[in-house]
Amino acid sequence: MTRLFLTLRYRGTNYHGWQVQPNGVTVQETLQDAIETVTGVRAGVIGCSRTDAGVHAEKFCCTFDTECPLRGERLALALNANLPFDVAVSDVREVAADFHPRYDARGKRYIYRIWNGRQRNPFYEENAVHIAVPLDDAKMNAAAKDFLGKHDFAPFCAAGSSVEDTVRTVSRCDVERDGDLVTVTVEADGFLYNMVRIMVGTLLDIAGGRLAEDAIPAIFEQNVREAAGTTAPAKGLTLQDVFYD
Amino acid sequence: MTRLFLTLRYRGTNYHGWQVQPNGVTVQETLQDAIETVTGVRAGVIGCSRTDAGVHAEKFCCTFDTECPLRGERLALALNANLPFDVAVSDVREVAADFHPRYDARGKRYIYRIWNGRQRNPFYEENAVHIAVPLDDAKMNAAAKDFLGKHDFAPFCAAGSSVEDTVRTVSRCDVERDGDLVTVTVEADGFLYNMVRIMVGTLLDIAGGRLAEDAIPAIFEQNVREAAGTTAPAKGLTLQDVFYD
Repeated sequence: MTRLFLTLRYRGTNYHGWQVQPNGVTVQETLQDAIETVTGVRAGVIGCSRTDAGVHAEKFCCTFDTECPLRGERLALALNANLPFDVAVSDVREVAADFHPRYDARGKRYIYRIWNGRQRNPFYEENAVHIAVPLDDAKMNAAAKDFLGKHDFAPFCAAGSSVEDTVRTVSRCDVERDGDLVTVTVEADGFLYNMVRIMVGTLLDIAGGRLAEDAIPAIFEQNVREAAGTTAPAKGLTLQDVFYD
Repeated sequence: MTRLFLTLRYRGTNYHGWQVQPNGVTVQETLQDAIETVTGVRAGVIGCSRTDAGVHAEKFCCTFDTECPLRGERLALALNANLPFDVAVSDVREVAADFHPRYDARGKRYIYRIWNGRQRNPFYEENAVHIAVPLDDAKMNAAAKDFLGKHDFAPFCAAGSSVEDTVRTVSRCDVERDGDLVTVTVEADGFLYNMVRIMVGTLLDIAGGRLAEDAIPAIFEQNVREAAGTTAPAKGLTLQDVFYD
């Protein structure tokens, strides 16, 4: 048996997220189907995170164990020939038998796109949220710096999550404007369920005056989900990179 | 009657190009339907060019005459509420009654995207052509400079076109790489039918060694369509800007 490490890109629009579930087609299931077609064996694929329905990935990492002799580009080509248009393998390599794509990740980068033009943009229909009211991106970027560092992100975690340790370290949180496109970039050593979407929702609430400019330190202080802002829609979110040693 | 000037964005994938035709749904027809719904009157819309099936537009300009009192953002919002997800009005303004979006344009800029990664990219499925073999973009960019200036572009015009004057002036032709994405940018005072697609196809033939590095001056010399390269697929092409005085 060899453990293979796959890098994927996918558009999340047509999927009920990464993880296999009974209610709809997921990326994990779709990939497992392609692997079964190519190798003849159904393998369990382990992902680097559980992206929500509608969330996209420029780089998603996962592993599976196989005795198939295909490697590298040849396996990637074979899998891509059996995957739908909105999922593709970018890279395949061998890793150690004990490598784990989630536990061995030392961090990830997400981006969240906001189309801030007055009218909707067909090119950002599925991968950005449209906010027609002009956003004060400088104000958002200043507030975003309050996320930096090591904090208990419990208020930025969806209610009902069962994770025990909610302390994470955010090493980057930038809000940048390129014309009418506003992009929030967040890097951290790990992410809680809905963490980026609640962080972005909070920044949008600050921009809209529903929360004060200095709300974030107070939210950390209160340490309850209700103190933070709304959860921004899934479709604006893209997992952009996963970092390993 | 007032002549209104509309700026549109559209994803061309689901359309048989701009111009109304019997065989399929076009962007012009779709827009005319929305205008009729909003204003109550069916108006003829005049476009700045006739994009092919599958070609996209970040900025497409067109005009129509109306007695509807709606203007500017309010009309754009009303039209966008009646347009499908892949077409949207970005801007509406009044122009002189004799303004013509095609004859008054003094130039246009197109971009052509090539996804040059080894594996296909789901995010460039509809708006780029995938070429897996590494392209020598520096060689393509050097050859692209041979397009600059005033030439008879007859060899870069689809056979069967009825246009009489095939002389055009290209003011920009750049091939740039950003990671695995190669973008060809072409600006000219006007474009013949399939001109950018044949220019790009010729650059790709030069990159692939099917045409010599200095083929372009020789093609102008021979002045026949057969001398030039293949026609690159429509889906890589986007009308990016239209210039008016």
